[in-house]
Amino acid sequence: MKKTDYVIATYLLETDGDIESAAEALATEQSTGTWTDVPGEEEARSRHGARVLAVTPKGERDRPSLPTRLAPEAPGTQRYVWGIVEVAFPHINFGPRLPNLLSAVAGNLFEMGAFTAAKLIDLEFPDEFLSHFPGPKFGIEGTRKVLGVYDRPLVGAIVKPCVGLGPRELAEIVYRAARGGLDFIKDDELLADPSYNRLHDRVDAVMDALGRAERETGEKTMYAFNVTDRVDRILELHDIVVRGGGNCVMLNYVTAGIDALRMLAEHTEVPIHAHRDFFPAFARSPWLGLGTTVFTTLSRIAGADQLHIGALAGKLYETDEEVLESVAACRARLGGLRQSMPVSSGGQHAGKVPITRRKMAHPDYLHLSGGGVFGHPDGPEAGARSIRQALAATAEGRKLEDAARDQAELRRAIDYFGEILY
Amino acid sequence: MKKTDYVIATYLLETDGDIESAAEALATEQSTGTWTDVPGEEEARSRHGARVLAVTPKGERDRPSLPTRLAPEAPGTQRYVWGIVEVAFPHINFGPRLPNLLSAVAGNLFEMGAFTAAKLIDLEFPDEFLSHFPGPKFGIEGTRKVLGVYDRPLVGAIVKPCVGLGPRELAEIVYRAARGGLDFIKDDELLADPSYNRLHDRVDAVMDALGRAERETGEKTMYAFNVTDRVDRILELHDIVVRGGGNCVMLNYVTAGIDALRMLAEHTEVPIHAHRDFFPAFARSPWLGLGTTVFTTLSRIAGADQLHIGALAGKLYETDEEVLESVAACRARLGGLRQSMPVSSGGQHAGKVPITRRKMAHPDYLHLSGGGVFGHPDGPEAGARSIRQALAATAEGRKLEDAARDQAELRRAIDYFGEILY
Repeated sequence: MKKTDYVIATYLLETDGDIESAAEALATEQSTGTWTDVPGEEEARSRHGARVLAVTPKGERDRPSLPTRLAPEAPGTQRYVWGIVEVAFPHINFGPRLPNLLSAVAGNLFEMGAFTAAKLIDLEFPDEFLSHFPGPKFGIEGTRKVLGVYDRPLVGAIVKPCVGLGPRELAEIVYRAARGGLDFIKDDELLADPSYNRLHDRVDAVMDALGRAERETGEKTMYAFNVTDRVDRILELHDIVVRGGGNCVMLNYVTAGIDALRMLAEHTEVPIHAHRDFFPAFARSPWLGLGTTVFTTLSRIAGADQLHIGALAGKLYETDEEVLESVAACRARLGGLRQSMPVSSGGQHAGKVPITRRKMAHPDYLHLSGGGVFGHPDGPEAGARSIRQALAATAEGRKLEDAARDQAELRRAIDYFGEILY
Repeated sequence: MKKTDYVIATYLLETDGDIESAAEALATEQSTGTWTDVPGEEEARSRHGARVLAVTPKGERDRPSLPTRLAPEAPGTQRYVWGIVEVAFPHINFGPRLPNLLSAVAGNLFEMGAFTAAKLIDLEFPDEFLSHFPGPKFGIEGTRKVLGVYDRPLVGAIVKPCVGLGPRELAEIVYRAARGGLDFIKDDELLADPSYNRLHDRVDAVMDALGRAERETGEKTMYAFNVTDRVDRILELHDIVVRGGGNCVMLNYVTAGIDALRMLAEHTEVPIHAHRDFFPAFARSPWLGLGTTVFTTLSRIAGADQLHIGALAGKLYETDEEVLESVAACRARLGGLRQSMPVSSGGQHAGKVPITRRKMAHPDYLHLSGGGVFGHPDGPEAGARSIRQALAATAEGRKLEDAARDQAELRRAIDYFGEILY
């Protein structure tokens, strides 16, 4: 077996039978199948069959981890064994195409009644396979270059209210937030190109507001315009953004389809902010779907320049350890692909800056707030300042309580949000 | 509140707080957000805010149904309440765009640490919203018209081995299966346009084989060519199929993205066979993701002419009751959209024909086998015949055991697969 001909997938698998047979069944179902008496089948199986590389039984349960019609009516009369299974898939079967790759390594297997847990927890790719994907066109370096900021984490915010403002009202609060020192502002994932706030008008209004702010502060701000739409309209919306002078686009790439991100990445002239809403629907169960780091890796292959990875010390479901695994997957070696900039977002404010900086252990991330900026009691400009102040204090090794003594915006943020985490 | 301005979503929701507040939080997070002191916000909230219509508490648990960082370290010290929640979303927020609709009704909410279960179990659309989607261009009637078969269920098979055969070898077994009386044959979802079996060559070889079979039997066979690929190549592959005389295309529309199906449906000149591999990754958990009937409805809106709905008496995880709910969703009134033809597939053979026909309670479905045709001990032609024989016997009210006495292919199938279900 020539290793470079294969993509290696690792699964958590549980079954009502024995785990070795389940692993073989998975490998067979997801490649050639088992049918006999067909001319040429033997050759097909040797070139195209997936191969079980390793099976590690881990434990037993007395009830299935997922529902199945095959469960006996009397509970406790059946044992379910689970373990870790490694399978090698010949990539000649699907080629460098994300939808076909997913159908092979993460397709029908989730539906099998005999598998009472099935989660894809790791994928390993040969460099040659990866070389067919451009990956992030900008990545961490390209994002920093647009802003001219190299020596610290980036500070950003999501416009709130999420939806309902017209282009001018939205541009006005963007202007105030940018004046407060934000590197990055983005549309909410719920706002794209609706009838009451067309993208074309928003680009004009926002880029004009950011120009005014830059003339006053001397600092650039990147704005991620949400181009999520019907899949055959995404590139057109990208072009509207670029023609209007926009410097970043955003895609809800799970609801639009991960290959829509790959398509946009091959076309884009500005960094892509990749929003992963919906993704936990197939990642949050411990027994089903995709592991988060697998998904992070696939998102990077698809070309995410800036990539949501949950929130450190935040309000989302994942623990900090899990979030940091995704951060590592944004930066780990992956063929020749650029790194994605990890975005920590979900319940962020000035008081979360120190813990985020400490746990990240490097400055290459975007600290993204929503209410932490736009919900600041003195408005978005003060909200933005409070986060920059927290970041500067952290860089100098000062406690936020100390820094807050002579920095009103930070003090108000700490009082209002009521929490500092180190 | 004008009902036609809203899409109504029903969720199963579980929380570590109280269920009414969780419902309000969901509605707010997925529309305007809660931020104050922004000019125009009050108007925004009245036009764009989602509204909680009903909350029905259902029960309590002493541990969360899904993992969350917010769970206390000592188990049993926290109660989790769950219930059914109805929320109305103003569709002005997203418009007739599936990715944006999904981001609104099924986006970030799955990631919230405070929601320890979140499953979208129903969606209700006003007709005006649906009118922006063409839906299935062919549906049940259009599929029947291509074949000229109106009075019975359709009989089909998936080519096995799934992958590895070249175009000629594949066309040869397709020819044999078509001679046996199949209405429908399809590529496996694992086969699309790989280097060793290019779609262009396969269309030529298969359509030639089907032409030969038709001249011998006088019956047409529809062949679903898998056009799953990079999202910006799907329409090109469709065109290759149509130019080569093909009469059906297939899309793995979950791995390609559901809006890729909508795009294909607006373009297609032949019926679309919609394969749902990967979908159980976000549907099989009782606590997370989308309910199956919601997904079936969305697939029909996206334009699925023939739609996989699991398997009656099959090897997949869903019970027959759940499968029949999806069948009903394929046929229920849905604005002015055509019905999708339900496809029962997964562990089918001649012995499953009677139970499938009885439980369907109508003839408008496609009974799709894999091994049940291509794994027949006397080959695919005999396999196909065995299913047509089983269907004819069932239509006449005969037991398969009786019919098998003078029909060798059916007898061999019953002996080999070892099971008849009524």
